[in-house]
Parts: sequence; C-alpha cells; structure tokens
Amino acid sequence: MRVKHKPWAREKILAHPEVCVANPEELKGKWHQLFGNENPIHIEIGTGKGQFVTGMAQANPDINYIGIEVVESVLITALDKALAAGIPNVRLLSVDGADLLEYFEVDEVARVYLNFSDPWPKKRHAKRRLTHSSFLDIYKALLPAEGEIHFKTDNRSLFEYSLVAFSEYGVLLTYLSLDLHNSEFEGNIMTEYEEKFSAQGFPIYRLEATFKS
Amino acid sequence: MRVKHKPWAREKILAHPEVCVANPEELKGKWHQLFGNENPIHIEIGTGKGQFVTGMAQANPDINYIGIEVVESVLITALDKALAAGIPNVRLLSVDGADLLEYFEVDEVARVYLNFSDPWPKKRHAKRRLTHSSFLDIYKALLPAEGEIHFKTDNRSLFEYSLVAFSEYGVLLTYLSLDLHNSEFEGNIMTEYEEKFSAQGFPIYRLEATFKS
Ligand SMILES: C[S@@+](CC[C@H](N)C(=O)[O-])C[C@H]1O[C@@H](n2cnc3c(N)ncnc32)[C@H](O)[C@@H]1O
Ligand SMILES: C[S@@+](CC[C@H](N)C(=O)[O-])C[C@H]1O[C@@H](n2cnc3c(N)ncnc32)[C@H](O)[C@@H]1O
Repeated sequence: MRVKHKPWAREKILAHPEVCVANPEELKGKWHQLFGNENPIHIEIGTGKGQFVTGMAQANPDINYIGIEVVESVLITALDKALAAGIPNVRLLSVDGADLLEYFEVDEVARVYLNFSDPWPKKRHAKRRLTHSSFLDIYKALLPAEGEIHFKTDNRSLFEYSLVAFSEYGVLLTYLSLDLHNSEFEGNIMTEYEEKFSAQGFPIYRLEATFKS
Repeated sequence: MRVKHKPWAREKILAHPEVCVANPEELKGKWHQLFGNENPIHIEIGTGKGQFVTGMAQANPDINYIGIEVVESVLITALDKALAAGIPNVRLLSVDGADLLEYFEVDEVARVYLNFSDPWPKKRHAKRRLTHSSFLDIYKALLPAEGEIHFKTDNRSLFEYSLVAFSEYGVLLTYLSLDLHNSEFEGNIMTEYEEKFSAQGFPIYRLEATFKS
C-alpha cells in the first residue's frame, strides 16, 4: 500500500494505548486478561485501514479482534476508525505477521483473517506471501486444532497459488467461493480493498480452511 | 446434454468396432494389446461430441485416448470425428463412468480427464457429480500413484464443490487456473462446451491433481 510517510504516526499510536498495544510480547498468554473476558480472539494480518476489523468487532461483540498491520502510517487510519467506534473488543498491533509466535501463546488465537494480502507476484518473493508454507507453519503453531483461516482476495494469481499451497500443506478447505458477492454467503464485511476492486468488476475469491484432519 | 434420441445410434456404433469398443469388459487388462503399444492410456469421462479426445489424440500420437460417453446419440458425433481423423490412438466407449473398474485393470489408465462435467446443481444429486468422493474412490483405485486427474469447467459451483471435495479426500492439487484462457497454460484443446461458454465470456476453471502424497 503506497502511503505518505507520516513521522508523527508512532506518536499517535503511543498516545492511544487503549487501542494500540505497545508491548505485545509482554501480553503473550495474557490477551484474554487484557480483554477482560474469555471470548475467542480473532486476528487479522495486514489490517490496512481497519474497516474490516472494526466492522467485525461492532457486528460481533462476543468476539475479540486484533488487527495487525506492519506499516504505522496505515495503522493510524485504522486507529481513527477504532476510536470512532468506541468499542471494547478491538485492538491494533503494529508488528510483522512473521513474528506472531513472539506475541501469542499456542491456542490463544482461534481464527486468522487474511484479507487482500499483498500478492508479491514475483516468484522470488513468494516467501513473503501470507499463505506461503512458512506462514502456514506459524498459523498451525498458533491455532488450536479446530482453529480457522479465513482468506479473501481479488487477486487471481495469489488465490491460485494459495489453493495449491494449502493443498500441498494438507490444510483442509471447508468453504470456497469464486465469486463472493454473487454467492449465498451472509454477513460479509467489506474491506477497503474489497470495495475498490469489486466496484471495478473483479470477482472476490474467498475460502475458509482448518488444520484439523 | 439435450439431444434428439437417435434409435439408429446403437447400430452405427456397432458398425464401427475399429473405434467403438463393444466388449470393454473383455479388454480389462488388455487395452495396451488392443492399441498395439505400451504408450500411456488417458481416458476422458463424459466425452460428449468428442472434439477434445480426437484433438488430443491428433496432437499426441504417443498417447492412447479413450473417450467414455454414456449417451449413445451423443457418442456417434464423437465417432464421426474419430473416423474423420483416421488415427489409430483413439477409442470410444459407450459405458457409465461409475463402472470403470469393470473395464480397466488397476494401473492400466495413467490419466483421467473430466471436461465440463454435468454440474448436478441439486444437493440431493451430488453423488452423480464426477468429482464426488464415490468417483474419487474409483479414480484412486484405477490410477497408479503418479496418475493424474485433469479437470476443467465453466461451472463455478461445480468447481467450488470439487476443490472442497478434493481437499477433504486428500487429493493433491498440482496446478490451478481460475481463468484458463487468460493464463500461461499452453497446448489447450477446447471442448465443444468450452468454445460455447468461453465465447459467452465465462472464465474457464482448470486443475490438475494426483493421489500421490
Ligand atoms: C493490500 S493491503 C490490504 C489491506 C486491507 N486488508 C484491505 O483489504 O483493505 C495489505 C496490507 O497488509 C500489510 N502487510 C503486508 N505484510 C504484512 C505482514 N507480514 N505483517 C503485517 N502486515 C502486513 C501491508 O502493510 C498492507 O497494509
Ligand atoms: C456437459 S457435457 C460435456 C461434454 C464435453 N466434455 C464438452 O466439454 O463439450 C457432459 C457429458 O458427460 C456425459 N456423462 C455424464 N455422466 C456420465 C457418466 N457417469 N459416464 C459417462 N458419461 C457421462 C453426458 O452424457 C454428457 O454428454
């Protein structure tokens, strides 16, 4: 995502510890304590401007959401949305998804959302794709047996790659749509990218998967 | 496929034993003898009017092709094409794909093609879909470990269903395109349905899979 660098982004993030968690490594194993309940924790990796994570948190008060976004100048837009919503069940983290095992205990997260993840079209960058086997290793270590990955994208190549990568890894596909907006799926919350690309007429691909076998 | 019933279809089929094999159960384990060589045997289930199987046989003289089509009044159009091509490496069978194990020995067939298979959209008809687990049982029993299934269709629901069914079954996906005609895949031979539906602007979905793990 191309965004103007905003040097004051970090300052703004630090000024809102009630939403942006600054010391995630200290919360490892203690996220339910932070939320003050035992509700399931769902994380989104690559949250971007935060419409999805905030919308989901508003629609599902009995679930705790954590949006993870590595670019601080993007995360502050998500922060504005979370502050405007004024709800207790959403947090934001400015960390890299590759380091999740430093911040979460095994089984602490029940679901991973990947929405319109960067496609990294060049083969030599395949390792950076959030559905590469090295990331699947992380999700598998993180999630309980019945934990789920929910993934949507407009990017055909990334979706094709991911389906083959999941199959090779032995990830079990439990739901698939090759045209989400013309499917029977209910309760879809659109992301910023989803609004943009579906308006251009691209089909949205979506899947749900689990490591349970 | 809606076709006029042609009572003389059987007669025509019987008049051409050099292409339409009338006694397939007697050839079980002897197909290579029939072809007179040890080249791999690839079968297509639901051959329809035969453009694919004849086109493939012309393009690949070192492979033997068998087109299987349960409706005789459709098969005779395929027969006309095979006769016109006048090539030794194509045969046609008017049998049901559900009975393949009666006609082929284990490992006798190296590849199964499914092209634009009937979608059977009603859930109670799911068992008739050629990618239903009961058919996967047959293909698994039929194919050697490195044997392949190649499947293409314009039907979104059937393709979605099939990807989930393959994943549940543990079939390994080795290739996937969600828009075959805009992909890098080379040497595609179009079927009659493919010409019709791609001309209408529908994307063609395609996959390759294997039972090897
Ligand atoms: C294409 S944008 C999509 C944003 C949002 N999910 C949407 O659908 O509108 C992808 C986002 O993922 C972030 N991202 C990419 N790799 C990441 C990683 N390893 N960890 C955290 N965020 C990442 C990028 O900074 C970018 O903001
Ligand atoms: C939709 S047509 C597609 C024909 C051709 N493959 C094409 O792409 O043009 C499906 C064909 O499969 C045949 N078929 C369906 N189920 C079959 C089965 N179990 N065994 C053999 N043929 C079958 C039908 O009779 C029909 O001709």
